[in-house]
Amino acid sequence: MSRTLAQVGEFGLIDRIHEVIRNEGVELPKNTLGIGDDCAACQPRPGYDLLVTCDCMVENRHYLPRFISPREMGRRAMALNISDVGAMGGQPRYALISLGLRSSTRLKDVMDIYRGFLAELNPFNGFIIGGNITGTKDADFIDITLIGEVEAGKMVRRSTAKPGDAILVTGYPGQSAAGLEILLQAEPGKTWADNPLVTAYQCPAQRAVEGHAVAKTGLVNAMIDTSDGLLGDLGHICDESGVGAVLYEQKLPISRALRQFVESSGRGPLDYILKESDDYELMMTCDPEHAATIRDAVASISNIPVTQIGTITATKGSIEIMDPAGNSRQATVSGWDHFSK
Amino acid sequence: MSRTLAQVGEFGLIDRIHEVIRNEGVELPKNTLGIGDDCAACQPRPGYDLLVTCDCMVENRHYLPRFISPREMGRRAMALNISDVGAMGGQPRYALISLGLRSSTRLKDVMDIYRGFLAELNPFNGFIIGGNITGTKDADFIDITLIGEVEAGKMVRRSTAKPGDAILVTGYPGQSAAGLEILLQAEPGKTWADNPLVTAYQCPAQRAVEGHAVAKTGLVNAMIDTSDGLLGDLGHICDESGVGAVLYEQKLPISRALRQFVESSGRGPLDYILKESDDYELMMTCDPEHAATIRDAVASISNIPVTQIGTITATKGSIEIMDPAGNSRQATVSGWDHFSK
Repeated sequence: MSRTLAQVGEFGLIDRIHEVIRNEGVELPKNTLGIGDDCAACQPRPGYDLLVTCDCMVENRHYLPRFISPREMGRRAMALNISDVGAMGGQPRYALISLGLRSSTRLKDVMDIYRGFLAELNPFNGFIIGGNITGTKDADFIDITLIGEVEAGKMVRRSTAKPGDAILVTGYPGQSAAGLEILLQAEPGKTWADNPLVTAYQCPAQRAVEGHAVAKTGLVNAMIDTSDGLLGDLGHICDESGVGAVLYEQKLPISRALRQFVESSGRGPLDYILKESDDYELMMTCDPEHAATIRDAVASISNIPVTQIGTITATKGSIEIMDPAGNSRQATVSGWDHFSK
Repeated sequence: MSRTLAQVGEFGLIDRIHEVIRNEGVELPKNTLGIGDDCAACQPRPGYDLLVTCDCMVENRHYLPRFISPREMGRRAMALNISDVGAMGGQPRYALISLGLRSSTRLKDVMDIYRGFLAELNPFNGFIIGGNITGTKDADFIDITLIGEVEAGKMVRRSTAKPGDAILVTGYPGQSAAGLEILLQAEPGKTWADNPLVTAYQCPAQRAVEGHAVAKTGLVNAMIDTSDGLLGDLGHICDESGVGAVLYEQKLPISRALRQFVESSGRGPLDYILKESDDYELMMTCDPEHAATIRDAVASISNIPVTQIGTITATKGSIEIMDPAGNSRQATVSGWDHFSK
């Protein structure tokens, strides 16, 4: 039986966290100061711009603890921040972790959350350099601030899409939404180790390696991650760039697992692919003549597919979906609103 | 009657926040990217190291909303982060704000929280460059990540105090603890505009200007802010530096307001000065022959007093308090533990 935070106390907890980071994280570079002072400190590298993002996961709102393990919670919270850095073309470097925890939380579970963070950060040579821990009475929360680096001049924004651009997307959006639906409808206690849709929900992908590779080509006009859903984030690109878009229904990538699932689910695959889903794929736009080069840049470092799904238009704010017969309809964009649900 | 977040929605709220920052904050420097993309971005300045800290305030735990206004909450949350940057000798530059809010929160109150942030950041030419907003069911929280800069080589740590060092402290620690006691015992609804102890609680000081000035002298061996109380943070210096300390009771600075208050409170002034109090003063150690230079460095930019209150000793982990008659007793250090209460 693992001890609780009430038993080990705040400073005992911090000591254990420090130990896990030291033993299981990558080594801090020289001139970098980690946990243990009023601030963490680092020396920025010449030739790089800094990227900074923060994202927060609240228990029962962004995740349901009965469906994912503490380690998966840690991976997920870190992955969605890494995804934001990747969507600007950067690589993650320094993380600060702010946790709100109930005193009845088991020490072992907190260590597993940190192991989840490290599982995502270590491949990038990224470090946890600081944070903050506070008690909460009700829901736990995990708030991460992630600092990344991008080669000077290579940052990709969401506001720079151009009419005529091809719209590309990585991987298979929508799998995570289907995975959550499976979990919500399943009998309690069932295990799902072999279901790729459930895995997509429990341990979502991020594409920062791919984002960095395409940013280095200098050929991507706009990029965003699909954290608000494919349509929601295409809407952000259109709003910020002052453009519109048309999506080709038959081009949308459907994974084999999703195709099998929708045969019995009663909903079409577009419901999953276009709407909110925790997949954290990348969507990018580029001059169509560069699409092949961008695909090649990804193929040279990853086996994640890159699919051309549509075209940017000059019709500001309009997103149309064209069916295989060539008929198009207006898409209704509905993003997640934290205060409307 | 101000609208609630449920009425304006998440994206309406973000638009309003953006507007307040644009209109009431200082102008973003060139090459800095603020709110509106997957990440914020900035170019680090050559010749500076980066400092990063994060601190979180949870409703009913770190603050009682009935005692402080939304604007004061904002100031307080930002001040305690600025204090951490100042305690390393740096100046705040970029802030990311992560808020957890109930949907019944009034839009006006959120704007006032942001005005509090800006009231603290603007004098430093610091900017809010990003953040995250999430709904909560129960307690609100304000989590800030603050990035600061310090001249390369001028950072001051807490682990570098030396036996024989003088211990100096800014201002009058303990006033905030007395102010909270006054509020807890008062009749509801009473106003306190003219009470310096209550003001110290509602709108705590930070000493980043002073911290930066003393760090630039290069003569401070160790520095920390008193966020865990004077004794608690002296304990951190002693632990991290492998030293001990003796404090001279009669040298501890007692403000006139605190002296008047303790005449009727039934507790001695040391109870307030030494224990946890939200004052965020700075404690520093230096070779005693440099104490006057450090005092002068502060006096040249600020009217905050700097008082020598003790001496660092070689007796690892021992903190003694010496009374006016020359008798000393061991101090018991009790820091705030988030999971024991």
